[in-house]
Amino acid sequence: MQILLTISYDGTNYAGWQRQENAVAVQQKVEEALTALLNRPMQVIAASRTDSGVHALGQRACFTAADLRVPLIKLPIVLNGLLPPDISITAAEAVPQDFNPRFDAVQKTYTYSIYNAPYPNPLLRRYSTFAPYSLDIENMQKAARQFEGRHDFAAFCATGSSAKTTVREVYACNVEKDSNNMVTMTITGNAFLYNMVRIIAGTVLYVGMGKIHAEEILTIINAKDRKLAGKTMPPQGLTLFNVSYKIRH
Amino acid sequence: MQILLTISYDGTNYAGWQRQENAVAVQQKVEEALTALLNRPMQVIAASRTDSGVHALGQRACFTAADLRVPLIKLPIVLNGLLPPDISITAAEAVPQDFNPRFDAVQKTYTYSIYNAPYPNPLLRRYSTFAPYSLDIENMQKAARQFEGRHDFAAFCATGSSAKTTVREVYACNVEKDSNNMVTMTITGNAFLYNMVRIIAGTVLYVGMGKIHAEEILTIINAKDRKLAGKTMPPQGLTLFNVSYKIRH
Repeated sequence: MQILLTISYDGTNYAGWQRQENAVAVQQKVEEALTALLNRPMQVIAASRTDSGVHALGQRACFTAADLRVPLIKLPIVLNGLLPPDISITAAEAVPQDFNPRFDAVQKTYTYSIYNAPYPNPLLRRYSTFAPYSLDIENMQKAARQFEGRHDFAAFCATGSSAKTTVREVYACNVEKDSNNMVTMTITGNAFLYNMVRIIAGTVLYVGMGKIHAEEILTIINAKDRKLAGKTMPPQGLTLFNVSYKIRH
Repeated sequence: MQILLTISYDGTNYAGWQRQENAVAVQQKVEEALTALLNRPMQVIAASRTDSGVHALGQRACFTAADLRVPLIKLPIVLNGLLPPDISITAAEAVPQDFNPRFDAVQKTYTYSIYNAPYPNPLLRRYSTFAPYSLDIENMQKAARQFEGRHDFAAFCATGSSAKTTVREVYACNVEKDSNNMVTMTITGNAFLYNMVRIIAGTVLYVGMGKIHAEEILTIINAKDRKLAGKTMPPQGLTLFNVSYKIRH
């Protein structure tokens, strides 16, 4: 039986999702919890390899176990008892044996959060970037919408990436500011290049600051030149919000 | 010149506001920053001694310095450069020399946050208590409103408190649940007894769980018996939100 887990984590203290030699990764903690539960070495495959310091509210990961004695409905609470408090399993469901959480994903949603106030807020610092400058939210929203559609996102990809193609489709990209001064960019696409969300967020921020015009976005996309886009934003503002599959298992 | 600072902090890693012998307190960090800035031993007096693990978004503290060379408008940013990221100064203003941030406070507002969902959310765990049970928010709101007014709050005071009188006035007490499953109790009063907000929050939570009827609150207040009230809630859900003074300085 293959089981699909939904996982939330505070990435602050982890070297990202993927197992590392000399650092603690979220994957290791999840595999350790499953190993303790099933009393044999366990491995998981995830939907997305989030970077060091990046958070998740809807990461997905699969494992296979014919000998699982815990009913699925109880599995999150049992695993949470074996996990540190900065990682939480929020759902467990059976999926077909040929299901792959990465390749079967039809869309992923990320949020990028910028705390836009004169002084930092210590209660929000772990989950956002701080931007004390005046931001034009309307222009940021205008810029965000221009990322929607099927584009070659070569300008929004970290150098050294090994992706075969830099064409991706963004289904929706929006910017909102809430009453607590949190500016959140929410972006949904079929897949994302390495650092793509953080570079798009940096470009949208530059539009908010007036460094780039909202109307220039398509030109920057078409130029396919990383140097024309904004900076790569730091990891703590980024959260993998959701991964969607065609079939609800 | 006496200066009134407004201070936010993440209390997770501190033994509360007040300086301690064998533990790090927020007061120590603020005094160290001022000591570094003014190059002589500095002390501050705060509006409220928050407990270990309790947060603040609107703590107030005063210090006196005739030799401050930094303009007040620049003081928060300069002090923030000398403070760790979990403490932030958000305002600095001159106040009369006889102003006392504790005794001149006319009202204080605290929030208590309860994350009410089936499984924990690691991104909210530092700033809320987790309650996976079904809660009747309408009844919690009914219960909260009954704390409003001038009452003897002896039943809502930690034993061993040395307060001269246990009479306090609550100006407003409300419970709301937001779209992210966060249940927040906001309470404003002239002053609070030791652990009073955390015991009121525990009592309101018991009403939400059906352990106490909303109509019983006045009876519990009048009985002045700590054993009839709910449990003392853990510190991480509590935030000192604001302290108000009669005169805006």
